[in-house]
Amino acid sequence: MNAPFADLRIDRDRLWQRLVDLGEVGAVPGPNGERGNARLALTDADRDGRELVVTWMRDLGLTVAIDAIGNVIGTRAGTDPTAAPVMTGSHIDTVRTGGRFDGNLGVLAGLEVIETLEQNGIATERPIQVAFFTDEEGARFAPDMLGSLVFVGGLPLEDALDALAADDGARLGDELDRIGFAGPTPCPTAAPPAAFVELHIEQGPVLEAHAVTIGVVTGVQGISWTELTVTGRSAHAGTTPMRLRKDPLVPVAAVIVEASRLANEMNETAPDSQVATVGRVDVFPDLVNVVADSVTFTLDLRNTSEDLLRTAEHRMESFVAGSCAAAGCTVESTTLARFEPVEFDASMIARVERVATSLGLSSMRMPSGAGHDAQMLARVCPTSMIFVPSVDGLSHNIAEFTDPEDIAAGANVLLHTLLELAMNAA
Amino acid sequence: MNAPFADLRIDRDRLWQRLVDLGEVGAVPGPNGERGNARLALTDADRDGRELVVTWMRDLGLTVAIDAIGNVIGTRAGTDPTAAPVMTGSHIDTVRTGGRFDGNLGVLAGLEVIETLEQNGIATERPIQVAFFTDEEGARFAPDMLGSLVFVGGLPLEDALDALAADDGARLGDELDRIGFAGPTPCPTAAPPAAFVELHIEQGPVLEAHAVTIGVVTGVQGISWTELTVTGRSAHAGTTPMRLRKDPLVPVAAVIVEASRLANEMNETAPDSQVATVGRVDVFPDLVNVVADSVTFTLDLRNTSEDLLRTAEHRMESFVAGSCAAAGCTVESTTLARFEPVEFDASMIARVERVATSLGLSSMRMPSGAGHDAQMLARVCPTSMIFVPSVDGLSHNIAEFTDPEDIAAGANVLLHTLLELAMNAA
Repeated sequence: MNAPFADLRIDRDRLWQRLVDLGEVGAVPGPNGERGNARLALTDADRDGRELVVTWMRDLGLTVAIDAIGNVIGTRAGTDPTAAPVMTGSHIDTVRTGGRFDGNLGVLAGLEVIETLEQNGIATERPIQVAFFTDEEGARFAPDMLGSLVFVGGLPLEDALDALAADDGARLGDELDRIGFAGPTPCPTAAPPAAFVELHIEQGPVLEAHAVTIGVVTGVQGISWTELTVTGRSAHAGTTPMRLRKDPLVPVAAVIVEASRLANEMNETAPDSQVATVGRVDVFPDLVNVVADSVTFTLDLRNTSEDLLRTAEHRMESFVAGSCAAAGCTVESTTLARFEPVEFDASMIARVERVATSLGLSSMRMPSGAGHDAQMLARVCPTSMIFVPSVDGLSHNIAEFTDPEDIAAGANVLLHTLLELAMNAA
Repeated sequence: MNAPFADLRIDRDRLWQRLVDLGEVGAVPGPNGERGNARLALTDADRDGRELVVTWMRDLGLTVAIDAIGNVIGTRAGTDPTAAPVMTGSHIDTVRTGGRFDGNLGVLAGLEVIETLEQNGIATERPIQVAFFTDEEGARFAPDMLGSLVFVGGLPLEDALDALAADDGARLGDELDRIGFAGPTPCPTAAPPAAFVELHIEQGPVLEAHAVTIGVVTGVQGISWTELTVTGRSAHAGTTPMRLRKDPLVPVAAVIVEASRLANEMNETAPDSQVATVGRVDVFPDLVNVVADSVTFTLDLRNTSEDLLRTAEHRMESFVAGSCAAAGCTVESTTLARFEPVEFDASMIARVERVATSLGLSSMRMPSGAGHDAQMLARVCPTSMIFVPSVDGLSHNIAEFTDPEDIAAGANVLLHTLLELAMNAA
C-alpha cells in the first residue's frame, strides 16, 4: 500500500446508496421485504440502469466511451499521457430474479473509488477506467460474458450482434440500437488495459463458512456441461415384471449418486477442488404408474485443474456407458459448454492478498466457481478478483445480500489495489 | 367342458368386426395407421359408444338394465327362473390415448358368446349377463373402477355422483343425466351374480415373453402409491463446495436405485412377485447450474402378497429416512393410493385353467398388475379373469394390439367357462 494513502477509505454509505438507487431500476419486490432486480440484458430496464450509471460517470468527470457491443467504459485521466490505463468493472445486467449486488457492486465500487480519489485530490499516473460489460449473465443472449468476450477478441463482433434473445427472439444488434447503446468505439479493443481488477460478491457459502471477509480469487474453475438423454422402454408399472424392464431412470439415478460420490472422493486428495451437480432431470412421460421411456438430465462438472476436470469427465463418461448398457438403455450426450480453468496472474493475486492484510482484513485464497468478466480480461492483461461474502451463499436470488461492512471492506481493497497499480506506471 | 358343446366356438371375424366398429367411435388415428380410442367416461364419445353397444345388446334379444351409476347390464334369460345369473363384462370407457381392446374386448366377447349361444339354439339354466361398468379407467373421474365399486357397495352412490371431472370439473351425476345414462335400476345391486368372469388383454409383456396364449388370472396385485417431497437447499452449482451442500436429488437418486434393487432381491425368493417403479420425478428449480431445492417423486410398489408388500413399504420407508437424513434433507410423504391384493376364487381359477387346456390352448397362472372391474366383483361373488397377450406389452397406447387368433382363443375360453357355470345352477 502506498504509504501516503494508508488511511484512505471509501465512503460506505455513499456506495451503499448507489447500490440501492440502481437496485430500484427494474426492482423485483420479495415476500419478506427483499428488493431483487430484473434487468435482463438490453431490455428497457437495462437501458434505464445503463443511463443512470452513465449519468453518475459523467457527474464524476469521467470520459465515457461506448463500444460496438455496448460495453461502457468511463475513464479518469492519469498524469502520464503514455501509460496504459488500469481497469476495474463488472456488469449491471441481471438474471430474471437477480439481486442488487451481483455485478452492480463491481461497477459502483469502481465509481466509489473514483469519487474517493476526486474528493481527496489524488492524481494517478495511469488512467483509471470503470467498465460495465454487456450481457454478462447470458440470461437473454448466449453465451454468457458476451460483452467482455467480444472486448478481448474471443468472439467476432458480427456473430455477437446476430445473437437472438431466448425470450422474444430479438437480435442483439437490433436491441443495442433500440436502447441507444450501439457505440462508436471499435470492439475488440485496440488498447487493452495494463491490468484488470474486479470486485464481486462470492455467490457461494465459503467465505461465510470460514468467517473470512476477503476472498483472494486465484482463478476460475473449468466448466464441463453435458446434457444426456437415456432411452429405455416405457411400460406399465403394474404389469411389467422387473426382469422385462428397460427403465432409463434406474441408470440415471445411479449416475447421480456416482457423480456426487466421485466428487467427494476427488476432494479427499484435492480439497474443494471438484464439484459435480445434476441440476435438471426431465422424465418422460413422468407418470406415477408408467415406467419411463426416456430421461434427459444435465451433468455440471467443475474443477480448477484441467487435468482433474478431464479425469472427472472420463470417469463419469465410462460410468454412464456402463450403467446404461447394463440396464438395456441407450444414451446420447451433447456438450452444452466446456471452458478450461483460468488462472489469474500470480503477482496480481499476491497484490490483492497483501492489500487486504495491510487493511487488517481477514482473507483466504479461493477459486471462483462462477464465470466472471475478469476471466475474459485475463486473456489480454494481468487480472485478479476480490470476493466479499454472500449471506447464506445466495445469489441469482432476490434474497441475495452482502453486509454493508463487507461491501466497504471489498471496496477498500479495490481502492488500494487500483491505487498501487495506477501509481506504478513504469 | 360340457361334452355336448365340446366343438362349440365363437366367430372370430364377427367379434373382430365389433371391436373395429366400436373402435371407430372416438377413434384416434396414429402415425403408422394405428386406430386408437379416446372415449373418456361420460363424454359425448362415451355416450355414442354406449348407445352402439346397447343397440347390439337389444339386437341380440337381451333385456337391458341401466343402474343409477350408469352401469349397463344386458341379460339373456335362463331356463331356471330361480337361478342367479352368471355375469361377464368389463368397460368401454378409455384413457385419452387408449387402444381398441382394453375393456372393449371383455364386453364385446360377452356379446359374441351370447350370439354363439343364440345361433346354436343353446339354452342355459342360469341367465347370462353382459355388463359394462362406468368409468373403469378413472381418467376423468377418480377413483378408477368407480362403476363396479359402487355396484358392489364399496362406495356410496351419492359420493360417486358428486365426483368432479379432472378435465372440465363437470359433476359425474350431471354428466350421467346429460348423456342419458342415469338409469332407474338401484345401485349397489340387490342381486349379485352367481359368478363373474372377465376377459381382458394382459396389458403387459408376460404372456408374449412366454409364448403362452391364455393367462389364468389368480388375483390382482396390491398397490402402494406414495408421493415424496425431499427438501434440501438450493445453491450455485459452481460456487458451493460438495461438503456445504444439501442436495435433495442425491438421496432421491439413491432411493430410485434402492427401489429397483430391493424388488429384484425380493423376486429371488418370490419370482415376479414385487415390482417397484419411480415414474415421476419433478426437480425444482430444474436448472443445469443450480443445486436443487426440492425434488418430488412417486414410488409405486406392488405385490400379490400383502405381507411382502408391507415388507417392501417398510424397507423403502426406512431407506428414504436414512438417505435423506444423511444428506441433511427433510422428507414429507403422502399416500396417493393403497389397495390390498385381491385373490380370486380357487375353483374359478381352476375352472378357467381346465377350460383352456381342454381347448388345446397353452396357459399359465399369473396375477394382474393392473386394476380391473373383476376385483370389485370378487367382493360379492366367485370371480376370475382370462388374459390374452398384448403385443409388446403395450396398453393405454394407440398402438395397443392383440392378434385376432388370441382374441378368439380368449373368447372361446370365456364361452365355455360361462357355459359350464350357467349349466350348473344347482
